[in-house]
Amino acid sequence: MAMIAPSRRVRRTPFSDGVEAEGVKAYTVYNHMLLPTAFENPQFDCRHLKTHVQVWDVSCERQVQIKGPDAAKLIQILTPRDISKLSPERCFYIPVTDQYGGMLNDPVLLQAGPDTYWISIADSDFLLWVLAVAGCNGFDVDVSEPDVSPLAVQGPKSDDLMARVFGEEVRALRFFGCRRFAFEGQNFMVSRSGYSKQGGFEIYVEGSEYGMPLWRALFAAGEDLEVQAGGPNLIERIESGLLSYGNDMTRDNSPMECGLGKYVQVSQLATCFGGRALQEELDAGIARMIRPIAIDGEIPACDRSWPIYAAGCVVGQVTSATWSPDFETNVAIGMVASSHWDAGTVVEVETQDGLHRAVVQASFWN
Amino acid sequence: MAMIAPSRRVRRTPFSDGVEAEGVKAYTVYNHMLLPTAFENPQFDCRHLKTHVQVWDVSCERQVQIKGPDAAKLIQILTPRDISKLSPERCFYIPVTDQYGGMLNDPVLLQAGPDTYWISIADSDFLLWVLAVAGCNGFDVDVSEPDVSPLAVQGPKSDDLMARVFGEEVRALRFFGCRRFAFEGQNFMVSRSGYSKQGGFEIYVEGSEYGMPLWRALFAAGEDLEVQAGGPNLIERIESGLLSYGNDMTRDNSPMECGLGKYVQVSQLATCFGGRALQEELDAGIARMIRPIAIDGEIPACDRSWPIYAAGCVVGQVTSATWSPDFETNVAIGMVASSHWDAGTVVEVETQDGLHRAVVQASFWN
Repeated sequence: MAMIAPSRRVRRTPFSDGVEAEGVKAYTVYNHMLLPTAFENPQFDCRHLKTHVQVWDVSCERQVQIKGPDAAKLIQILTPRDISKLSPERCFYIPVTDQYGGMLNDPVLLQAGPDTYWISIADSDFLLWVLAVAGCNGFDVDVSEPDVSPLAVQGPKSDDLMARVFGEEVRALRFFGCRRFAFEGQNFMVSRSGYSKQGGFEIYVEGSEYGMPLWRALFAAGEDLEVQAGGPNLIERIESGLLSYGNDMTRDNSPMECGLGKYVQVSQLATCFGGRALQEELDAGIARMIRPIAIDGEIPACDRSWPIYAAGCVVGQVTSATWSPDFETNVAIGMVASSHWDAGTVVEVETQDGLHRAVVQASFWN
Repeated sequence: MAMIAPSRRVRRTPFSDGVEAEGVKAYTVYNHMLLPTAFENPQFDCRHLKTHVQVWDVSCERQVQIKGPDAAKLIQILTPRDISKLSPERCFYIPVTDQYGGMLNDPVLLQAGPDTYWISIADSDFLLWVLAVAGCNGFDVDVSEPDVSPLAVQGPKSDDLMARVFGEEVRALRFFGCRRFAFEGQNFMVSRSGYSKQGGFEIYVEGSEYGMPLWRALFAAGEDLEVQAGGPNLIERIESGLLSYGNDMTRDNSPMECGLGKYVQVSQLATCFGGRALQEELDAGIARMIRPIAIDGEIPACDRSWPIYAAGCVVGQVTSATWSPDFETNVAIGMVASSHWDAGTVVEVETQDGLHRAVVQASFWN
């Protein structure tokens, strides 16, 4: 691995000083921003995440704020998911697609205030899409990136740590429930969500100046809970089947291919971007889909897509993979053709180091 | 500095195997792709660039391909620059702006074929903007990211190296001239351009499979020219006043603020995105502009914007800065208010390590 070169373009976050003090070992870049990925090493960080509680700097989940009288109308044409039941107490995971039904991003949508929505984005400049759609159609909205930086608290002791800092009521939040909670005179949106399956919360820190005070408050309150700094963990997220935009799906994929078919609602297809293409795909049948895959042998870092072969033909690709100490196999996420997506199907995966036997799984591991 | 974590999302390039074999020391991430920035160290790499010839993997300059009967019409509303004189023999640097006149990118536009254009982009997902504008307005075009990866040859011996690989005719290319040249049965677009002021070319390698053969051919032909792998060099680009999108300009800036006023043509303002806002700014007068700035003392890495003060008030910000061994000063790029942009104005720059005296310069150094 090489070093990452410093520049303003690869943005620091309100928590970067804390991240550095905790001894960050590796970053990735996500939405033009530093995303810490390792503090000790992925295996240690994974074990700790599953046992204790971690604080993650996920500021890189930038918000596209849409504000104004036409905001809800605009958002509804951006996604095939019906958002009419969205409320300030409930956030929605929404696929967003281009006019051809290709995934542009897989964000979480929140209502931050009256006529004010945040689209908490994965790694693409979705703001440019929203800005153009709003401008070209004359929607009465203001589109911006506000000074909001999510901080995640993840792991089995998350409720305990959060209750100490935000009060006992935070325990009552349901999955994808959200509500504002007080911190030092501010009211931050908090949701029960996050990029692991170990339980936890995301705090939408509004105002960079509150970043380090909250960071310090969480570490101070969590000392006896063995709180540590962490980040999205490759092992845990693959075991849990959490997809990564840019890794496991791109604009080449439809929501159905990504296993997000339940968010594609037929009632929306006449009016949303890509609706016609999605309807055609539904009519024709889904040709390939995300699958959990176990790979045999010793594999290198999955820094490129790995073709999946069966009987000499390409039947898919692996896009994320790593060794899982807990499940004692290489866990992987791949896109597999319908001909070979049944659980138990034996295939071959071609890494940069050679061919490996692999088996399509019935379900993810966590 | 921390390491960069491997993932498919941070894409490798057709030249990555070569880059690694040459011992890359640092990367940045640009358009979701690895961009090598250091091989020995920035000072050594800079000296070599100014003396010999380097091969740069700038695959991250991705192409937004716009193809179809409406392609030229679409592109003309994306930029305030008149592109009617564009031809297959001449590429154009074009600012592209949103509906408010804010910079979305500062790409180079090429005509790659009949009704086929490439927009060779800086670091933002400009494809999303183009796709939305095309879709919302019913333009008859196809918008895609083709398998085209630029490789740059930069430095005073560039003509000699290029002539050995592509033939003597390559020497006849003028600045921003372009033409197709043969390599192993392919015809690659070659332009006299690049992100240094040491002279050189960019080769638009069409087809990833030709990447390493071309890389090897350039290194084999250039051994006695002391060819080395390189990349955009922070020292040289600041000395030369080459702006970096995301560092020195963002959507908060207009083309005029970035010193790109000559590409804002009044004839286009009635029809291009942001034209009205640009006209209003021209009428009101430009309030701040990019300036070269020399900073005294020992400065840290410029990984965030540094406020510029005069008499206790903020009058701008420095966005790129580093020590220049050749000019024996800290060279910097900043955005400065009109009240303080005259050459010779003394200001103070606040880095993360403290205040430094600085002086606005009359011109960049190279």
